[in-house]
Amino acid sequence: MATPVLYAVKRPGDVKKLTDTQQQALCGELRKEIISTVLKTGGHLASSLGVVELTVALHSVFNLPKDKILWDVGHQCYAHKLLTGRRARFGTLRTKGGLAGFPRPSESDCDSFVAGHASTALSAALGMKAAMELKGDSGEVVAVVGDGALTGGLAYEAINNLGSSGKKVILILNDNEMAISRNRGALATYLADIRNRPAYFEAKRLTRASLDRIPVVGTPAKNAIAQAKGAIKQMLYPMTFFEQLGFVYMGPVDGHDLSRLKAVLRQAKRLNGPVVIHVQTQKGRGYRPAEQEPNAYHGVPPAGDQGRGAGPSFSAVAGETLCRLAEQDSRICAITAAMADGTGLSAFAERFGPEGRFFDVGIAEGHATTFSGGLSAGGALPVFLVYSTFLQRAYDNIIHDLAIAGQHVVIGVDRAGLVGDDGETHQGIFDAAFLSTIPGMTVYSPATLDQLRADFARATRTHSGPVALRYPRGGQPVFAEGYAPEAGQDFYYFGSADAPRLLVSYGRLSAEAALAVSRTPNTALLILGRIAPLPEAALELALSRDMVFFAEEGIKQGGIAQQFGAALLERGFIGRYRIRAIEGFVPQGKVEELLDDLGLTGSHLTDWIAEDTDETTA
Amino acid sequence: MATPVLYAVKRPGDVKKLTDTQQQALCGELRKEIISTVLKTGGHLASSLGVVELTVALHSVFNLPKDKILWDVGHQCYAHKLLTGRRARFGTLRTKGGLAGFPRPSESDCDSFVAGHASTALSAALGMKAAMELKGDSGEVVAVVGDGALTGGLAYEAINNLGSSGKKVILILNDNEMAISRNRGALATYLADIRNRPAYFEAKRLTRASLDRIPVVGTPAKNAIAQAKGAIKQMLYPMTFFEQLGFVYMGPVDGHDLSRLKAVLRQAKRLNGPVVIHVQTQKGRGYRPAEQEPNAYHGVPPAGDQGRGAGPSFSAVAGETLCRLAEQDSRICAITAAMADGTGLSAFAERFGPEGRFFDVGIAEGHATTFSGGLSAGGALPVFLVYSTFLQRAYDNIIHDLAIAGQHVVIGVDRAGLVGDDGETHQGIFDAAFLSTIPGMTVYSPATLDQLRADFARATRTHSGPVALRYPRGGQPVFAEGYAPEAGQDFYYFGSADAPRLLVSYGRLSAEAALAVSRTPNTALLILGRIAPLPEAALELALSRDMVFFAEEGIKQGGIAQQFGAALLERGFIGRYRIRAIEGFVPQGKVEELLDDLGLTGSHLTDWIAEDTDETTA
Repeated sequence: MATPVLYAVKRPGDVKKLTDTQQQALCGELRKEIISTVLKTGGHLASSLGVVELTVALHSVFNLPKDKILWDVGHQCYAHKLLTGRRARFGTLRTKGGLAGFPRPSESDCDSFVAGHASTALSAALGMKAAMELKGDSGEVVAVVGDGALTGGLAYEAINNLGSSGKKVILILNDNEMAISRNRGALATYLADIRNRPAYFEAKRLTRASLDRIPVVGTPAKNAIAQAKGAIKQMLYPMTFFEQLGFVYMGPVDGHDLSRLKAVLRQAKRLNGPVVIHVQTQKGRGYRPAEQEPNAYHGVPPAGDQGRGAGPSFSAVAGETLCRLAEQDSRICAITAAMADGTGLSAFAERFGPEGRFFDVGIAEGHATTFSGGLSAGGALPVFLVYSTFLQRAYDNIIHDLAIAGQHVVIGVDRAGLVGDDGETHQGIFDAAFLSTIPGMTVYSPATLDQLRADFARATRTHSGPVALRYPRGGQPVFAEGYAPEAGQDFYYFGSADAPRLLVSYGRLSAEAALAVSRTPNTALLILGRIAPLPEAALELALSRDMVFFAEEGIKQGGIAQQFGAALLERGFIGRYRIRAIEGFVPQGKVEELLDDLGLTGSHLTDWIAEDTDETTA
Repeated sequence: MATPVLYAVKRPGDVKKLTDTQQQALCGELRKEIISTVLKTGGHLASSLGVVELTVALHSVFNLPKDKILWDVGHQCYAHKLLTGRRARFGTLRTKGGLAGFPRPSESDCDSFVAGHASTALSAALGMKAAMELKGDSGEVVAVVGDGALTGGLAYEAINNLGSSGKKVILILNDNEMAISRNRGALATYLADIRNRPAYFEAKRLTRASLDRIPVVGTPAKNAIAQAKGAIKQMLYPMTFFEQLGFVYMGPVDGHDLSRLKAVLRQAKRLNGPVVIHVQTQKGRGYRPAEQEPNAYHGVPPAGDQGRGAGPSFSAVAGETLCRLAEQDSRICAITAAMADGTGLSAFAERFGPEGRFFDVGIAEGHATTFSGGLSAGGALPVFLVYSTFLQRAYDNIIHDLAIAGQHVVIGVDRAGLVGDDGETHQGIFDAAFLSTIPGMTVYSPATLDQLRADFARATRTHSGPVALRYPRGGQPVFAEGYAPEAGQDFYYFGSADAPRLLVSYGRLSAEAALAVSRTPNTALLILGRIAPLPEAALELALSRDMVFFAEEGIKQGGIAQQFGAALLERGFIGRYRIRAIEGFVPQGKVEELLDDLGLTGSHLTDWIAEDTDETTA
């Protein structure tokens, strides 16, 4: 067996030394490596397979790390990682202490910028380019952005700014038709239109090239001729969307034709000013099941993974519950920001889509929120389901477009708390803190599926202002015998009324708290079902204790544990108060591993209470 | 003197009854009323004067409140208010208890949606339209959006979603060239290009109209013909940006030609699907000083207003300080999101713009933040100056693009705390709470100009991660004799070391707290200069007090007072703890009036401490 080409690529630049044939072989080997590893570790399979040739072409034409490549979202960077000295560690992908599933500058100087959320790469690229110019650094900056990520307004803000800045950033539009298959927006439709007329655009490219050869010298003659050229061009062929915004447009290019890709990239390198290269790729390329069902293979679970918790997921039950409620209340609509499957809304979409009661607005959480406000103002009852980490993008929209007018909008905050292997960019550890700062906002945090059902029912039926329900990824946690909470209440209490010690928690972590209490004498358990506003009666219950412990699967600063403690203090509490919560960004790992590291498992909480109690009695 | 036409317009619909001549006269009267009132009350003069004819045309063609008009940002709605039963109260504009300077549904059913921040109207309009369709309500929905607001990504997310939805929303693009004069983005340049070729677009319009008359029946024939038509159109004339995104484009139209405006609006009413009407208006129209200097007359202060605090404003000193620091450190750049004047950056722009060290990215706070992250990653030292209320739009960008990688970006949070007459949409009451949730973030809250200078110096010189400085609108507050804090420290203490009572505050409110302490025996004052992370030594100072009072010009839930209280409690504090902070949205009024209403003036704080102390000793 010949030594694979991949093994010869040890550092950035090695790809350049390969022949065309070797580079072709390299693409095959990269695919094999990615498929075999990701089927074991789990990860974003389809998107990484789609950009193998593009990655090899980029590494052939550009000089890393002097030139910068920014991968938008970043889940398509596996081939890039394999080519930049990380092959040996590739098997540790997305595991605790292992390689991240996204670009991480802390891992390699070939990863230029932290990524994880969509639509950020162009903004960061423009900033890097501006800084490099200030230093007299002539390196190139390339941003690879998917068509889906172009539905995010941040990408457009950057395009608008970049187009007028005249700075040389190369935008590679990785058009894998994902946004289009789901009909997510007007720009997607427009791109499809371009794709259907490649010959036309090729002709256009040639015409432009000859026009561009008309020499242009000096000012103001320059402007006059430039304007005339602009007018001629406009007569000869329509400008693309991107040209109207100041970019040179190249494409569409077959994203699996390595030599054509390299030729276009070299051409782009010679140009000045902003350039967009429209590259068409196929998600899942080279792995038949992923080619056929790219959605199913967007994210692949690790081999043998059963997900956290047994039985159905909170997401699935959220979707089912909404369907049932929507049958009974014709005002109810559902909104997603490009996450219909992930948030359990597929059945809702199928059932209520034809009635105009389901909306997928693209990767646009801000718009989804303000749009929901409009739906409410118009008399509908919108329910927006969204991952916790992405809802961070709509903080102002919740304040400005929902809360001030008291719009009745229900936000289902999925993946609240730790999410695991996606790492620090995706942990849902801020929602409890930032949602609770908003006046008029009610926040429920169901710990069981029954609570989720009951909380969706009261959120839609008994409220008139904005309401959020936050619930974790995966299924229902297992509660210790005798500590399973009922549903539909603002809090749940377990223990004797005069227990000197009280452990407080909410959401999924309540099960760990229950385990700790079940093992600890003289200690009662308080599970908060509503975390904002804090239930007055729950505070009263805690007031006379000798010691109150609060365990929180969320950020400590400004979080619910601090709010609860401060509220107790204001009410005259003079006992001891302890908080165990999250105090920094949380890296990747299994949720169990992370809870263990953070001291938030049942066993850790048991020890925590015991230690502190010993101190007191000592 | 003839009874003015304006007096005859008592309710929506009355405009329709007027003759063309009367409507022309009405425009003149509206201008007079707006100018004379706003020069007294203060307000957004230039933008409201620019849309007088447009407002009259909208009221002539549409049926309010059945049809909905959404004014983006909303500061151009004065003529609309005068025509919808609010003329008699117009003199109370922007005063406490008076008419809001922005659309407020609580004021009139002709105000469809809360506005104040830019770029929200299209998202809300699309939501309202969808809800109305569900109810079988055939009303029209019109969004009036300025060219400046189109630089915001939220507007684009809505355009993208609306264009593909096929829903009938009329977007009126109010192109007053404000964005252009400042060269704010590629779309602005593109719009200028359209304006320079009106005849061309008129021809195009006619061609389209005849093409549209080709009958199209049935499916799939329909698709084939539709496609062919698309191809022919594309051959005949270039599509505009908006047409590429699924809109019918009409314009450009002279926004001061009332009869042309009405004709175009009637035409738009007959169409199906999304329509954009490109209207050209002149800011400040009809008031010579505002026509000549629209920026200066964008916002006008109330007659006799001297601003809060004496001497130079925090904004001006921030700009000066940055200039000085930038002279010494060539890495320092400044970034603004379309607020160069407001944030004091004009001199910086003039001095360092030519060196490529000043960036106005348009109304795009998210992009400004991520762009700053890119600048930092590229080796520059970016300082982003932004109003507190608008920074709410960048919460995720701060977390994801600055904090995770620990980028050294300095955020100058201007207008932190109460801002006054702009009302609930603009009060800067959330920044302390949301910024302090972010790991690795340092937040300073200078109370004096010297502190501002010192804090900018240490933020740029001694830090390596993200730092925010928050400071109020207007000038430096006056401190009671003997309580003026020094500068450059994390906290400032006044009083005997064993004073049984302690009042804690930060930022501008420190001066009110100082006044209260100066009048209260046995009470010390602690001013926090750094509010995140809380200085450990400041907590130690508070720990042994009998009573700690915390006064905060910010939201209570999750705010600094709660965080301070919880931190004390965790450290074993057993005294009494009281918080006075903001617990809901704060309406418009002078800052002094609002502080009075909130119980946050020096006198109120004096009484508060005395009352609570009496209770204790009683």
